[in-house]
Amino acid sequence: MDDTTMRSRLAEARVARLGTVGVDRRPHLVPCCFALDRDIAYSAVDGKPKSTRALQRLTNIRTNPPTTLLVDHYDENWESLWWVRIDANGRVLDGGSEFDNALDLLRLKYEQYQHAAPEGPVVALDIVSWHSWP
Amino acid sequence: MDDTTMRSRLAEARVARLGTVGVDRRPHLVPCCFALDRDIAYSAVDGKPKSTRALQRLTNIRTNPPTTLLVDHYDENWESLWWVRIDANGRVLDGGSEFDNALDLLRLKYEQYQHAAPEGPVVALDIVSWHSWP
Repeated sequence: MDDTTMRSRLAEARVARLGTVGVDRRPHLVPCCFALDRDIAYSAVDGKPKSTRALQRLTNIRTNPPTTLLVDHYDENWESLWWVRIDANGRVLDGGSEFDNALDLLRLKYEQYQHAAPEGPVVALDIVSWHSWP
Repeated sequence: MDDTTMRSRLAEARVARLGTVGVDRRPHLVPCCFALDRDIAYSAVDGKPKSTRALQRLTNIRTNPPTTLLVDHYDENWESLWWVRIDANGRVLDGGSEFDNALDLLRLKYEQYQHAAPEGPVVALDIVSWHSWP
């Protein structure tokens, strides 16, 4: 997969899976909506009901910044499979201009957020490396 | 989501995302096919081309067994979203009766494997806890 395809597949994906790591070295995985701004991906804690308010992903990123974000395409024809993954360092944003910009990008990408804007915090993923297959 | 729904959604999912952790505490994420046998999930290294033979997921599991496996459903109607996640301890199987049984389960679930059986190794995930949303 060439670089242009890789970047557009990530940018256009409607859902990704965010991986973080706890202090106990246990991986944590959650599907998330996100928006890409050049080499930073943003995701926001939004109004979708959560099982707990103390979100594991935020705790993990605050104590251990390395994160990863994966988008993939599944098809029963295995010739059509592909995935794009970024390895990144995560930051948790509670406010400020970068936070506001991230919410703007998310509202632009997801019509659903225009009716109920995410409250945050925002997770900012500073991309360290890009990976793709095939 | 009730327990029966949670278990059947995991068992029937055609693709999941496997999270592992490296010695550097960096999470690693890859989409995978898998089969569930009560409280163990099995995935196999198969013939789909890989970017490298020394697979990061196997190195990670051998040095740090905690793993996680996520299946999720995305829909533009956010009322229909759901996910099921298992936290597990991983083992890498290179042969033996459990290895053979895992390959049988994978061939049974995926018609694609009936034409090209996976060679392995097999990743066995001993489920520690189940999580689901909503």
